[in-house]
Amino acid sequence: MRVIVFGGDGFCGWPTALHLSAQGHDVAIVDSLVRRQWDVELGTQSLVPIASLWERLARWKAVAGRDIRAYVGDVCDAEFLYGVLRMEHPDAVVHFAEQRSAPYSMIDRAHAVYTQVQNVSGTLNLLYGIKEIVPACHLVKLGTMGEYGTPNIDIEEGYIEITHHGRKDVLPYPKQPGSMYHLSKVHDSHNIHFCCRAWGLAATDLNQGVVYGVQTPETLLDPVLYNRFDVDGVFGTALNRFVVEAAVGHDLTVYGRGGQTRGFIQIADTVRCVQLALEHPAGAGEFRVFNQFTEQFSVEDLARRVSAVAGRLGLQARVAHVENPRVEREEHYYNAAHTALVALGLEPHLLSEGLIEDLLHLALRFADRILPGTLLPTVRWR
Amino acid sequence: MRVIVFGGDGFCGWPTALHLSAQGHDVAIVDSLVRRQWDVELGTQSLVPIASLWERLARWKAVAGRDIRAYVGDVCDAEFLYGVLRMEHPDAVVHFAEQRSAPYSMIDRAHAVYTQVQNVSGTLNLLYGIKEIVPACHLVKLGTMGEYGTPNIDIEEGYIEITHHGRKDVLPYPKQPGSMYHLSKVHDSHNIHFCCRAWGLAATDLNQGVVYGVQTPETLLDPVLYNRFDVDGVFGTALNRFVVEAAVGHDLTVYGRGGQTRGFIQIADTVRCVQLALEHPAGAGEFRVFNQFTEQFSVEDLARRVSAVAGRLGLQARVAHVENPRVEREEHYYNAAHTALVALGLEPHLLSEGLIEDLLHLALRFADRILPGTLLPTVRWR
Repeated sequence: MRVIVFGGDGFCGWPTALHLSAQGHDVAIVDSLVRRQWDVELGTQSLVPIASLWERLARWKAVAGRDIRAYVGDVCDAEFLYGVLRMEHPDAVVHFAEQRSAPYSMIDRAHAVYTQVQNVSGTLNLLYGIKEIVPACHLVKLGTMGEYGTPNIDIEEGYIEITHHGRKDVLPYPKQPGSMYHLSKVHDSHNIHFCCRAWGLAATDLNQGVVYGVQTPETLLDPVLYNRFDVDGVFGTALNRFVVEAAVGHDLTVYGRGGQTRGFIQIADTVRCVQLALEHPAGAGEFRVFNQFTEQFSVEDLARRVSAVAGRLGLQARVAHVENPRVEREEHYYNAAHTALVALGLEPHLLSEGLIEDLLHLALRFADRILPGTLLPTVRWR
Repeated sequence: MRVIVFGGDGFCGWPTALHLSAQGHDVAIVDSLVRRQWDVELGTQSLVPIASLWERLARWKAVAGRDIRAYVGDVCDAEFLYGVLRMEHPDAVVHFAEQRSAPYSMIDRAHAVYTQVQNVSGTLNLLYGIKEIVPACHLVKLGTMGEYGTPNIDIEEGYIEITHHGRKDVLPYPKQPGSMYHLSKVHDSHNIHFCCRAWGLAATDLNQGVVYGVQTPETLLDPVLYNRFDVDGVFGTALNRFVVEAAVGHDLTVYGRGGQTRGFIQIADTVRCVQLALEHPAGAGEFRVFNQFTEQFSVEDLARRVSAVAGRLGLQARVAHVENPRVEREEHYYNAAHTALVALGLEPHLLSEGLIEDLLHLALRFADRILPGTLLPTVRWR
């Protein structure tokens, strides 16, 4: 299958591109490389040093014997994007090319507008490009479980059957996103759904949970292929941040009471989920939503697990509660469906002590690259 | 009350500004005047000639003895917008300053992206401006009934109580908008809702139905105060277009089978609804949604009513069905709640033969300004 991975230089995009290439798909990457610029802006860096996109691709060719083409440019530049679609004529595209940090989107007005304009326009350009150039192309889009918020009823996969005043309909699941970033994903979902209804496009929205872990079998083949490891308060996610805090003897900083419960998924499962969505495509006119996570944890629970494993390695890692920089419920009901990807064949890799230990070793190995001032949250919602 | 009307030079904004000023409020208008530029772009014009904003304001001062301040600039220009908020320190703002035509948003990719970026960024700027400069200011935002689409259950005012697997919650009503423009309003609603939850802003979203009629008691005081009358296939709305078609002996062009049912409201009621929302503001942290229409009609029904009145005036006006340029259900269930504004005191002005007759006379008076090529739809959804 000819696949373009938009955002193929990023944390999810890079291992996905390698995995699809390893599975025999013909892969191209499109990326503006702006993620690397945000590190420069924020004074942060990937804990694991990462090679340039060009070094990565050359090494992949050397190690795996497979070509991945790359185009450096912005999906918001429609002329560039249309040119790539005409050149590649993909059977499917995987769209990760968005600003994906909630705190980054909440820095100030300019970052909020940037995040929404960038994410929404890029996806709109892609939708029009598909319609005009490759109408049968399957769009696989990264959404987020954060689109749903924390309703007091079970979360379903994209839609819910509602009975009201004696009548019935299946409608889009109501959304209560919790940041300017999460809002941008909700906007995308509505836009994509409309294009499926109006133009007959085929799309799969992967509402992904919080991703943890760093490497996949492919990125581990060579240090030049290593994936990025974000540990700062802006781009780092819960479990990965806790591991790094444990490695440097810092308290594990749980935001607020820690009862916030979310769906989680390993990066190694992320790439398999994308593969499954691609190899079992949506039909024409279909807007399919999969909840892409494998387990639910509260933040407190995650911190305790990391603390326990760290303790056994002789690291002191106390669970501490810091003022929550976000506006969110800290105790709430949470039960989200996630059966569609399993039905397609996903065999979940659950969170194990071994994985936490591997991550701790990785963090210890690169501990001298940790920038201490960047671990704690600096962006406040209010 | 100190009120800014954003988009105060437009079809809804201008009569609203005059009405609020006549009611004794201290009104300022902010408008980029881009609506006049879209006429230039499309080769269309208001059927009723309209004066410049500056002539309008000078005449209002002469006729009513009241000042309305005006600022020409774009809400997407944050520096300009913040300056106005600092200068005016409003108690409330009414936000009409958006691209409001579904067909315009569906012209092509560029117009879709323009509509969403413009509408979403302008509203985001306003939300941040309120938060940072006038946090107690009440935001009254124009939404649209088109956000809901045509679900097979009753439409409620913004929220719906859902019972699911034995649990209950009140959640945002699911949205199924039918154009890039309608989508932009859904995006706005989610953004505003979030800012009320996260920052405690007070907002009222007026999900307005299709507006018909042209003048209000205030715009009728002097020809220089006349409101615009859009009759083209891009900016004209159903009833107003039918009246003009009848006036020139054209068939009344119903799109498709005509079973499309929508909520409708007179422009004279629009301005009163805004007044009611302003004078009974939302509380801090409250995101209130009112469905702003007074009656439901099918498009076919509306065309028949116009045809009947036209016939009595000796005009031949046959109801014809043209290919539907839109993608929408042409027969469907439709029953939308609209009691909140009535509870605040709205006394609806229902569609009367007298009003249709007045509109027909207005259309006949300016019939020589009708540009024949512009009445039929030129923008197709597919």
